[in-house]
Amino acid sequence: VPHDILPVLLSGGAGTRLWPLSRADRPKQLLPLVGERTMIQDTALRLADGEGLRIGAPLIVAGEAHGPLIAEQLADIGTTPAAIILEPMARNTAPAIGLAAEWLAARGEGERLMLVMPCDHLIAHPQAFRAAVAAAVPAALEGRLVTFGVEPTEPATGYGYIEADAGDGPVRPVARFVEKPDAETAARYVAQGYLWNAGIFLFRADAFRAAAALHAPEVAAAAVAAMAGAAADEGFVRPATDAFVTAPSISVDYAVMERSPAVSVVPVDMGWSDVGSWDALARVSPRDAQGNAARGDGALVDCRGTLLRNEGGPYVAALGLEDMVIVSTPDAVLVAPRARAEEIRRLVDGIEKAGLPLARRSAQRPA
Amino acid sequence: VPHDILPVLLSGGAGTRLWPLSRADRPKQLLPLVGERTMIQDTALRLADGEGLRIGAPLIVAGEAHGPLIAEQLADIGTTPAAIILEPMARNTAPAIGLAAEWLAARGEGERLMLVMPCDHLIAHPQAFRAAVAAAVPAALEGRLVTFGVEPTEPATGYGYIEADAGDGPVRPVARFVEKPDAETAARYVAQGYLWNAGIFLFRADAFRAAAALHAPEVAAAAVAAMAGAAADEGFVRPATDAFVTAPSISVDYAVMERSPAVSVVPVDMGWSDVGSWDALARVSPRDAQGNAARGDGALVDCRGTLLRNEGGPYVAALGLEDMVIVSTPDAVLVAPRARAEEIRRLVDGIEKAGLPLARRSAQRPA
Repeated sequence: VPHDILPVLLSGGAGTRLWPLSRADRPKQLLPLVGERTMIQDTALRLADGEGLRIGAPLIVAGEAHGPLIAEQLADIGTTPAAIILEPMARNTAPAIGLAAEWLAARGEGERLMLVMPCDHLIAHPQAFRAAVAAAVPAALEGRLVTFGVEPTEPATGYGYIEADAGDGPVRPVARFVEKPDAETAARYVAQGYLWNAGIFLFRADAFRAAAALHAPEVAAAAVAAMAGAAADEGFVRPATDAFVTAPSISVDYAVMERSPAVSVVPVDMGWSDVGSWDALARVSPRDAQGNAARGDGALVDCRGTLLRNEGGPYVAALGLEDMVIVSTPDAVLVAPRARAEEIRRLVDGIEKAGLPLARRSAQRPA
Repeated sequence: VPHDILPVLLSGGAGTRLWPLSRADRPKQLLPLVGERTMIQDTALRLADGEGLRIGAPLIVAGEAHGPLIAEQLADIGTTPAAIILEPMARNTAPAIGLAAEWLAARGEGERLMLVMPCDHLIAHPQAFRAAVAAAVPAALEGRLVTFGVEPTEPATGYGYIEADAGDGPVRPVARFVEKPDAETAARYVAQGYLWNAGIFLFRADAFRAAAALHAPEVAAAAVAAMAGAAADEGFVRPATDAFVTAPSISVDYAVMERSPAVSVVPVDMGWSDVGSWDALARVSPRDAQGNAARGDGALVDCRGTLLRNEGGPYVAALGLEDMVIVSTPDAVLVAPRARAEEIRRLVDGIEKAGLPLARRSAQRPA
């Protein structure tokens, strides 16, 4: 009998680091960043029946404003979600997963496995991911909270790390979670075999509910009350605002995973990227012999290592650039060195302070 | 009795080096590059009666396509031109000046002084220019071809130089004209007191006609025939195409000035720039404490020495740039290091080869 898995897609990120393409009304996960499909579409299509698994229709947890667009994007790929839970406000991942677990419990499916996935990550080798999920199933069925640890390809400072205990099999106990390190510490972590914390989890709904009740009781209580008072219509589930607002804004890592003794990790090498900056997008994009990655109208003349992304903006003519990023949209153009792509939030903050609508509103739907 | 001077404004440049703001249908001289007025407007307003001079209504020599826009821009500043001569094709400066000289001769004003000025140059200190013109008048009245030599502020390689003979007064004989030098030669020229050839001239129409007939007879003959067959309507003069096409395309420097023994130069320090590149524009634009020059919608965050010019294009957000130029227009955006601004023609050539209309057509009239 195949094990039935509920994919839980977390569509939470605001994605300001990919401004001006990513906007509040159309964040990263709802954009076609790498291929033809949007990232939430790629995430929904990443899993498939097989390897002893039966993959159910996905449950989405998303910001209220994005519900209609998500429904449309899933319909475009022929996916009917189990439901789309619309958070009345952003409260980070622990409350979001709490809502999903309560949704399952309310249907009498508390023993069902939940595969929690951010839907703004890239996984170049989904077959490796599926194999890791299959490997994680026995531990999850036993009640373990299983996380997936990405084998690092560089000493990144932008991710948390997981130290795994020694072990033979694919599933190993977690020794500890550590926060985003500085460069020196990151190099040591990589040398010592630590794994990147990708924020992907497999567990039974009731295992998560019990762990949340124990380690993050405010989160658990808010999720229970919000779903007890939820309204449902046409595939959308609307948790009770007055209850959900009481949930602390906290990540599942802090609230549950780092505190629970029942946490395991499956190391996996699956071509993972969180595409968390324009520099990261440049790294995962097809590049020419000069290391340039260009998409959309424009020309890179005598440029090297430069990312050009034009989504409905003016033609971009660039000359003599090195390791730059240029993004052209109908109402805003970004120019910055790739090495400073992480600082784009500063730009967006300044634009918001100036009262410009550019940070929120997307002028045009990208093709 | 004041000496009567006819300003002759040459509106010939195609201005591809200031693409994408400058286009074939709206070249540099028809744009407000530095101040509020377009460069042809600034040129028309640069002269004024005084210092023993009476300045007549200007005569314009321009490309046929630009006639209506020039008439409109002059009307906007309350200037009624003496006439606008529309060249049926571009033939460089010698034939253009030939047309103007014939126009004067045909009106019986062959002895009148012509002050020939490109109308895509910046002169920050017009009072110094006017004083130099006044100083040049006696020599010009005697039949000398007088050029104005700009005192160099740097060893520029983009201009031709003039070597003046020693002399006491403001007007000195020209020893020789030399072409655009390499950097080493330019430094030597500057050390030796050579002057920049700014392409500004004062002479009697008949003196020029005689010199052209002697040193550039094909130019002279074509100008005579083209104006003999000219048609005039509503302030526009249209030289005969079949005659003008026979003129060689040659600059007045090559055709006449370098060959005539009757050439004098007036050295002048007048804050002159040909604004021949985005880098040159950056040098003459108001800059903030970080050396940035910004005009139009956008933000330069943590940038230095960077020129941002937005004329109706998307908002430009730039982060961490040094000595770059960014130009945003409704249909094209340029990004390049200022040091490579001279190579923009390469970009435009590539765009033309790709069959894009961006090199010719301006999407919107700049404010």
